[in-house]
Amino acid sequence: MASNALIHPDRLFPADPSVRAVARRLYEAVAGLPIVSPHGHTDPRWYAENEPFPDPARLFVVPDHYIFRMLYSQGIPLEKLGVPRRDGGATEQDGRAIWRLFAANYHLFRGTPTRSWMDHAFATLFGLEERLSAANADAIYDLISDRLKTEEFRPRALFERFNIEVIATTESPLDELKWHGMIRDSGWTGRVVTAYRPDPVVDPDFEGFRGNLERFGELTGEDTFSWTGYLAAHRKRRQFFKSFGATSTDHGHPSASTMDLSFAEAEALFARVAGGNQVSAEDAELFRAQMLTEMAAMSVEDGLVMQIHPGSVRNHNGGILKRHGRDMGADIPSRTDYVHALKPLLDRFGNAPGLTIVLFTLDETSYSRELAPLAGHYPVLRLGPAWWFFDSPEGMKRYRELTTETAGFYNTVGFNDDTRAFPSIPARHDVARRVDCAYLAELVTSHRIEEEEAHELAHDLAYSLAKKAYKL
Amino acid sequence: MASNALIHPDRLFPADPSVRAVARRLYEAVAGLPIVSPHGHTDPRWYAENEPFPDPARLFVVPDHYIFRMLYSQGIPLEKLGVPRRDGGATEQDGRAIWRLFAANYHLFRGTPTRSWMDHAFATLFGLEERLSAANADAIYDLISDRLKTEEFRPRALFERFNIEVIATTESPLDELKWHGMIRDSGWTGRVVTAYRPDPVVDPDFEGFRGNLERFGELTGEDTFSWTGYLAAHRKRRQFFKSFGATSTDHGHPSASTMDLSFAEAEALFARVAGGNQVSAEDAELFRAQMLTEMAAMSVEDGLVMQIHPGSVRNHNGGILKRHGRDMGADIPSRTDYVHALKPLLDRFGNAPGLTIVLFTLDETSYSRELAPLAGHYPVLRLGPAWWFFDSPEGMKRYRELTTETAGFYNTVGFNDDTRAFPSIPARHDVARRVDCAYLAELVTSHRIEEEEAHELAHDLAYSLAKKAYKL
Amino acid sequence: MASNALIHPDRLFPADPSVRAVARRLYEAVAGLPIVSPHGHTDPRWYAENEPFPDPARLFVVPDHYIFRMLYSQGIPLEKLGVPRRDGGATEQDGRAIWRLFAANYHLFRGTPTRSWMDHAFATLFGLEERLSAANADAIYDLISDRLKTEEFRPRALFERFNIEVIATTESPLDELKWHGMIRDSGWTGRVVTAYRPDPVVDPDFEGFRGNLERFGELTGEDTFSWTGYLAAHRKRRQFFKSFGATSTDHGHPSASTMDLSFAEAEALFARVAGGNQVSAEDAELFRAQMLTEMAAMSVEDGLVMQIHPGSVRNHNGGILKRHGRDMGADIPSRTDYVHALKPLLDRFGNAPGLTIVLFTLDETSYSRELAPLAGHYPVLRLGPAWWFFDSPEGMKRYRELTTETAGFYNTVGFNDDTRAFPSIPARHDVARRVDCAYLAELVTSHRIEEEEAHELAHDLAYSLAKKAYKL
Repeated sequence: MASNALIHPDRLFPADPSVRAVARRLYEAVAGLPIVSPHGHTDPRWYAENEPFPDPARLFVVPDHYIFRMLYSQGIPLEKLGVPRRDGGATEQDGRAIWRLFAANYHLFRGTPTRSWMDHAFATLFGLEERLSAANADAIYDLISDRLKTEEFRPRALFERFNIEVIATTESPLDELKWHGMIRDSGWTGRVVTAYRPDPVVDPDFEGFRGNLERFGELTGEDTFSWTGYLAAHRKRRQFFKSFGATSTDHGHPSASTMDLSFAEAEALFARVAGGNQVSAEDAELFRAQMLTEMAAMSVEDGLVMQIHPGSVRNHNGGILKRHGRDMGADIPSRTDYVHALKPLLDRFGNAPGLTIVLFTLDETSYSRELAPLAGHYPVLRLGPAWWFFDSPEGMKRYRELTTETAGFYNTVGFNDDTRAFPSIPARHDVARRVDCAYLAELVTSHRIEEEEAHELAHDLAYSLAKKAYKL
Repeated sequence: MASNALIHPDRLFPADPSVRAVARRLYEAVAGLPIVSPHGHTDPRWYAENEPFPDPARLFVVPDHYIFRMLYSQGIPLEKLGVPRRDGGATEQDGRAIWRLFAANYHLFRGTPTRSWMDHAFATLFGLEERLSAANADAIYDLISDRLKTEEFRPRALFERFNIEVIATTESPLDELKWHGMIRDSGWTGRVVTAYRPDPVVDPDFEGFRGNLERFGELTGEDTFSWTGYLAAHRKRRQFFKSFGATSTDHGHPSASTMDLSFAEAEALFARVAGGNQVSAEDAELFRAQMLTEMAAMSVEDGLVMQIHPGSVRNHNGGILKRHGRDMGADIPSRTDYVHALKPLLDRFGNAPGLTIVLFTLDETSYSRELAPLAGHYPVLRLGPAWWFFDSPEGMKRYRELTTETAGFYNTVGFNDDTRAFPSIPARHDVARRVDCAYLAELVTSHRIEEEEAHELAHDLAYSLAKKAYKL
Repeated sequence: MASNALIHPDRLFPADPSVRAVARRLYEAVAGLPIVSPHGHTDPRWYAENEPFPDPARLFVVPDHYIFRMLYSQGIPLEKLGVPRRDGGATEQDGRAIWRLFAANYHLFRGTPTRSWMDHAFATLFGLEERLSAANADAIYDLISDRLKTEEFRPRALFERFNIEVIATTESPLDELKWHGMIRDSGWTGRVVTAYRPDPVVDPDFEGFRGNLERFGELTGEDTFSWTGYLAAHRKRRQFFKSFGATSTDHGHPSASTMDLSFAEAEALFARVAGGNQVSAEDAELFRAQMLTEMAAMSVEDGLVMQIHPGSVRNHNGGILKRHGRDMGADIPSRTDYVHALKPLLDRFGNAPGLTIVLFTLDETSYSRELAPLAGHYPVLRLGPAWWFFDSPEGMKRYRELTTETAGFYNTVGFNDDTRAFPSIPARHDVARRVDCAYLAELVTSHRIEEEEAHELAHDLAYSLAKKAYKL
């Protein structure tokens, strides 16, 4: 329940005194629970090597697309923010200069979750009491730089300070899980598990897809250019990931399309897709769709929880893609259908005992229309939390308001931070806990549930549901 | 204004004391108004035979898809809930065992309307003061069982106790309205009317469509395999339904598509559809679309109010459909277009004096984008209330927030309970009245309307608009 | 901060006393700021001739589609409201009779923005203290009529009284800007600028498109039936508009589709479109799409800010179109895609220095899913305010809640009134200021921003952002 001049103890609670009082009581009981982080993108190398983080700009600004996309939207070139160019052209190398630019534009983040995550980290990690600005940029830069050099700011120390019970990273099937091996062998007790993200060998549109298939074959000893060998390679690799603690897979497809082809059809499709000719857009989509069903089949066998993250149009800005490459803050959501898209998979596995599929969305219209009704019926389905652009107070509030009445709370899976920004993890879980407690407090004060029930629910949403859904 | 430990007198009112005070005053003035229920699915046989309801499980759990879908979503087999199998396989027959399973999982319904309807019925009908749980399941089962055997819990007694002024049921054109006849002839003064739901003879995808057409011919003496005979049969049957009090028709199509073909085109389409060959998906959709326009034409003639309930993908779960049949809680909404879909019908009848078409939706995105603008312009259009999954406090709140500014209140038609769960009827109307009063109270305290106006509106929304729109 | 019995000083502020107090303080500091109106449809002739407005009915009712669409939706014929018929058939000519009908139905507007705009105008312009009704219709008619004859109710006096710093009108490229010329030459200091709305020569579906092209050629001396001549004509006409103060263009397309054809492809497309044969729907859409990109190219050259207003299905009611013509309150929004539609334009100009494109929508689902993510990344994009049906308290609130967390405040452009209803301008800006202050007050009291920051933002949203975005 950290607070200071930057972060108010009642932040994100409703203004009405009676509702706020309930929210406070609920929050106080869950604020200190350990963090379960079942889905995210922190770098396992940090925990493996336990080296100090670099300077403030390279910790907070350069790698965070939430931050540089907003600055870019107001006309600040990515080069000035130190974001590398594909052609190796000059970019700002001076962390302090990048930091100053960020600080001078900190007002742009007013009303955004980024602002609250930053303030939370500034206040709780570095004891700042003053909002970042052009005036104090240098002083804050120096202060943070100094701290980052100390032992207590190394990754493992922060992991423990953050009270992380378990964190999952996400790796490609082509990853040898070297850092995870180092963590395991290090004797450190922090629990870091991997998750199986097969997009590089499942999505024919993925950069270097054919080369990925080759490497997939080398790693597994299977003929990954035959359909059966390819599937066998997945099975082996999933087992390998499980041996590093993986309890889940993750699938980042453009749509939620699934397909359930016969073996012969699937084999023929795979031959077209892996054959080396240009893959048609239809075949690429069909193959991704078929692979979701294949992955579900494997999850029925090996128990890995399946996560589907659809609906992002990746690298929308052609100019930026050319200049700076992928993942530069130019991914834009698009309309996403679930009700028709998932039917083939659900017709085959919708009632399969033991299978869990966690659905995410970037299209909030699907919450009440499709996702809550689906999750409120199919035993294999659960709703992932408000995701990405909606990992925000208003996004989380809408999520609860739009899903609870149809799916209840117990078809949801608690909170995922989904971040690569390590210092923001406590802030993000704190926001989720506050917003959920605020929502529960509204239910209590409008006499839809009792406060006692709300306490149980607050604990479930903050902690238990994630552990249970992800088998952690 | 019933209240006890289970149902708080201020439930669903805003927390702010000034708003709550207004909401209370508004609600107090409408809480006791009679129930007008212009659209629902209670069984007319209940009112005709006036037999006692069976045990608590068979009254509350087995027939209620809201309840068993939620339990199923958490892995409880439908067989254990007594839901019959198509193959006649074993299912739980012991009402008490079903009830215990329900009670032990009652927490799953936290935050859902089902929970509030159940608590309302438990409190107001049976005087319960304690939330249902595994611990009290047996005691409550016994108490309800005993009550159900008494005279005052027979259907007609409950009808009167519920203060129902009029209730509509929904029947197929193939129904002989035997129960409605029995009610009429019984001398009982309860007003139960029917509504014309022609889907079985209008939707070529309906199970047994051709057989239905045959029966339609037998009932009407028309050649229902000729286009003119088929239309004449509808006319006759609509008159028959009117003689049993019907003031409306109801159309549950997959989409809101309408069409306005020439006579020759329609005749040729009907020949394809009724001809006995496999009907193509396009023809089926086209025929349903054309029939909406034909039904509108007949409504212009005979004055029946037309209700369109589109947008549900029925029986989505292939496994459940095979095992348990239709209507097992696996209907899922999908995106629904109105602006293009309704244009053919509206081009012909959009300005027809005396015609009323009530539009419903399961796609809340259409409220502000399409439905409110359409209803705020076309004299024939009215907006039905928040429907099905959205017959809920948050659903109703969004409905008002998203439609009022464009369509006003007077293009809406008050509340429909749309239920087959008889004991939930007072609870549902009570929720609607409370949510509408809460919404009006917000308008009053933000000085958008005067409290005096809100009183008029509260009465209209709770009572007058439904009577007027449905000509009851 | 006008208030009286009709308009409460705290209208549209949250009920909670602590939030309301902050909202009041924020609002008090911006309530008196001048009005910047960068996009609207008032008639420049009013300011040029400065003649008195006609009677109350012809000022408030007959030209306002918000008003007559609502009355029509409840069965009142447009003829009785004085709306002209295309066939010259009889319509009500007596302003007082029209006014009485309006007054007797004023309750229909409860809960709508129209009601609040009317009450604001009645209270602030005419000092009314009593709500319009059948009982006081005549008295109010007389009072307003009398006032309209006085000097202080002439257009220029009202312009000054409204504290309008600058207002933009919208004209076709075929307009000779005669009234703007008169204003310029009059010596009056009121700042009225034009905006370039090329739909009549850009949309092949526009009534009289070929004739418009001819006239376009006459006005510019270019061969507007050749692709290069046609583009040159646009360039000349844009310069001409700039000489009358234009800083923006406006594009009211059915969709947001853009295209980036090669010169040869575009030339061939133009030849098909301008050639005099029936233009196919595909070519019409493709040409509009290509022209958005061409207009962006010209904006890069000449600096005009580009506004895209897509997504309205115009003149939906076939019967009304035939009887009364275009723009009769029968425009209905439809689903609008931005993420795919804008990509061709953005691939070419998304990162162009100096270019500004303001995006509007009638499909609120796009706010959080597409528009905020796009505006929160692309430096050329800004979000226009809640538009048309959503120029309303709830519409504005949803706009902020759905866009701020991703796009922030500084990728939005303040408020546009977008109206032809001159007396409603102060009311509309007042509503926007109140709703924005209420939103900011919620952020302050939930400790997401400081009150000091909220003061800066309130000023930006009410005044500075519009000036800056539109280069006014």
